[in-house]
Amino acid sequence: MGPGEGATNEDVRAAYELGALIAQEGWVLLTGGRAAGVMDAAGLGAKSVHGLVIGILPGAGVESMSAAVDIPIITGMQEARNNINVLSSRVLFFVGMNAGTASELALALKSNRPAILVNQDAQVVRFFSTFGAQVLKSAPDPATAVQLAKELLAGNPQS
Amino acid sequence: MGPGEGATNEDVRAAYELGALIAQEGWVLLTGGRAAGVMDAAGLGAKSVHGLVIGILPGAGVESMSAAVDIPIITGMQEARNNINVLSSRVLFFVGMNAGTASELALALKSNRPAILVNQDAQVVRFFSTFGAQVLKSAPDPATAVQLAKELLAGNPQS
Amino acid sequence: MGPGEGATNEDVRAAYELGALIAQEGWVLLTGGRAAGVMDAAGLGAKSVHGLVIGILPGAGVESMSAAVDIPIITGMQEARNNINVLSSRVLFFVGMNAGTASELALALKSNRPAILVNQDAQVVRFFSTFGAQVLKSAPDPATAVQLAKELLAGNPQS
Amino acid sequence: MGPGEGATNEDVRAAYELGALIAQEGWVLLTGGRAAGVMDAAGLGAKSVHGLVIGILPGAGVESMSAAVDIPIITGMQEARNNINVLSSRVLFFVGMNAGTASELALALKSNRPAILVNQDAQVVRFFSTFGAQVLKSAPDPATAVQLAKELLAGNPQS
Repeated sequence: MGPGEGATNEDVRAAYELGALIAQEGWVLLTGGRAAGVMDAAGLGAKSVHGLVIGILPGAGVESMSAAVDIPIITGMQEARNNINVLSSRVLFFVGMNAGTASELALALKSNRPAILVNQDAQVVRFFSTFGAQVLKSAPDPATAVQLAKELLAGNPQS
Repeated sequence: MGPGEGATNEDVRAAYELGALIAQEGWVLLTGGRAAGVMDAAGLGAKSVHGLVIGILPGAGVESMSAAVDIPIITGMQEARNNINVLSSRVLFFVGMNAGTASELALALKSNRPAILVNQDAQVVRFFSTFGAQVLKSAPDPATAVQLAKELLAGNPQS
Repeated sequence: MGPGEGATNEDVRAAYELGALIAQEGWVLLTGGRAAGVMDAAGLGAKSVHGLVIGILPGAGVESMSAAVDIPIITGMQEARNNINVLSSRVLFFVGMNAGTASELALALKSNRPAILVNQDAQVVRFFSTFGAQVLKSAPDPATAVQLAKELLAGNPQS
Repeated sequence: MGPGEGATNEDVRAAYELGALIAQEGWVLLTGGRAAGVMDAAGLGAKSVHGLVIGILPGAGVESMSAAVDIPIITGMQEARNNINVLSSRVLFFVGMNAGTASELALALKSNRPAILVNQDAQVVRFFSTFGAQVLKSAPDPATAVQLAKELLAGNPQS
């Protein structure tokens, strides 16, 4: 999860690397599905190593879909689809930050979904840490983030 | 799409066969995801030939999920998720009928999604035909339904 | 509930009368909120006798809102908002029929909400009666429909 | 908007006062509708001066509804209903903070809805100010917050 429009070059590079690492673990990548910023880059990273990409699209069609999406889920719900992104992910990674990304992180904490902040500003980490969530972790880079996710999933098999 | 609870044995057999035929075409099967009736049977049919199954779940977790679902999309939206099922499918098949299934068929016609009625009662066909939908078709059995879908998709590639 | 675009003159007249009768009972009228067909006419009928009108809008703003709506609820969910219409109504009236209206009636039966068909074709009544819903009733005109609703509500106070 | 469970006594007092002030302006109060914390207190404040209270409920029924709610809108969408709260409000007030409240504030900024932070910690104000939203304001108490809202609404009539 991360900004569409307004993602920094650093966010985009980190997202691409993260997508590739996720796919290399054999995990399915779920993104917001649009051809923009972090979600697009993460998908392209996953496709670079032949991963599978699910895109949870905000619109009622595929008009703004990333070329990396294998399976579009078309919600027609705009921002309300953020809650589906959160509930459907076994671990959430957050690369970059804007209002939409913040809403997803807040929903993840509300629903007790494991969330990993990747190279986020100290202010972001501090703010979201105040909610006392059970599983909020911080990693300096994508490789460390994926390692944290492996440990979380090993201790928390989906029943 | 079809009844969960209350599916007839005939519905379940047809759904299993349909799921297998869909997977044999190399198509991804999308269902309502619960371990019940038509959606469960279609998924199991698809898995019998190693297909990929997406389940759009109504609850906020995987507690009632069909064993056939490879990728759960967790909506937490109960019946409102029916519109996601409809929008996300390139062709919809309807096996059996109850109130939930009727809501999905009505939403499909509202959104101009191609819908194929499989072995439905004449009353069902007649009622839904009154809405003048562009693409509502009827087939006596799963094999004919999949053949109709192939023709529809050949004439309507997803851009 | 009833068609927006495509409502017949008869539907519009019945909806206006029904909206006025609902407001005269002191009930709040909930509609789909758009400036079209049955929902617009029912709202205008309610306002003609100073009723209160809630509009559950499909878009992300008030751009297509009926002038009769006092309180817009803005969902941004398009057709998925139909389930909110159904769940939020203590009794549902159905005037006219199209695909969207059929989806709402089906969802009402799925959720066991009381539904009253107003001057509907015999085919519509017969089709929806097959689902064995606990509370599906049929009335020839708005006045009879409101009388049926009063009896339903007297026997089923909201706790 | 504010915490249900986990609201502080100070949050509850401020919410009650804010609800009363909103109703005294003749405005309709919209809350998350549950009988808990800030949303309950704001509703009770509005009712103390005979205001009108709309509750956008997360569940599929009225089981956890605040006694202050006049008109329940039943979404059955759990946390995804937060986006409806945001879209449907002409001005949003935020009293207290937890993960759910943060998701609503983030969605408000994403959708460019005017948001007023009432007596929030400096860390909260600083974090959300980073998103460069057009209309994010901060007030030390409910009376000042309502005064800010009046100015915002005077300059931004709903068309």
